[in-house]
Amino acid sequence: MKIYFAGAIRGGREDVRLYLERVEVLKAYGTVLTEHVADEQLTELDESMDDRAIHDRDLAWLKEADCLVAEVTTPSLGVGFEIGKATEWDMQVLCLFRPSAGRALSALIAGSDRVAVRECKSVADLDEIFDDFFVTPATEL
Amino acid sequence: MKIYFAGAIRGGREDVRLYLERVEVLKAYGTVLTEHVADEQLTELDESMDDRAIHDRDLAWLKEADCLVAEVTTPSLGVGFEIGKATEWDMQVLCLFRPSAGRALSALIAGSDRVAVRECKSVADLDEIFDDFFVTPATEL
Repeated sequence: MKIYFAGAIRGGREDVRLYLERVEVLKAYGTVLTEHVADEQLTELDESMDDRAIHDRDLAWLKEADCLVAEVTTPSLGVGFEIGKATEWDMQVLCLFRPSAGRALSALIAGSDRVAVRECKSVADLDEIFDDFFVTPATEL
Repeated sequence: MKIYFAGAIRGGREDVRLYLERVEVLKAYGTVLTEHVADEQLTELDESMDDRAIHDRDLAWLKEADCLVAEVTTPSLGVGFEIGKATEWDMQVLCLFRPSAGRALSALIAGSDRVAVRECKSVADLDEIFDDFFVTPATEL
């Protein structure tokens, strides 16, 4: 299972430690193609690539992935863009949302029937959420 | 010309007055399908619709539109989602970005060859930007 993990980068890095928690747990379910999203040094690292190269690399990874797991608590144009593409490509999409942040999730994300939105209050919720997403559907086949 | 105008809603309404300025100028170029994005009362109005209904209405308008004009200064999952869809549908996309806000635009938006990104520092820039986007290509045909 190849997993594309998405989280805000230029939109704001306040949740970067949560991204790291999620990526660490996700590794039990497959290969995470985008570990750099959870890297606290990311901004400096990425400065060596231009926007076109980042765009092309990320879309190639998204096309290669079997599913998209997105942290959607911090608003982000890039994460929304990836979810828009993934829903067009009929990929499985799981969005993790932290209601305690005091925001409502975009209606375009919450209202899409191609997106599973799960509330995630702490790292302890992740195993159940990921088991439901990755394991349960396969068992039902 | 049917124009879909996109701006942050649940992501943050701090730019809503700019959205109104842009929509007012856009009306000289075509019919703006999404005037409600620039409505300062929007949150209250939209509470009467559920997320699925908003998603379906907005995607129907996006499919009907000839182009997407998006304000991308305030990060927004919904706006990113719409740009992702529009680039898949080969629509013309114009993104307006205000560099003075101290943010860098998402590499996925700035690096897409299907998206025209123009910096917009004040309402006085809009006529030239919109003339270039709406008028110049037609003249060249």
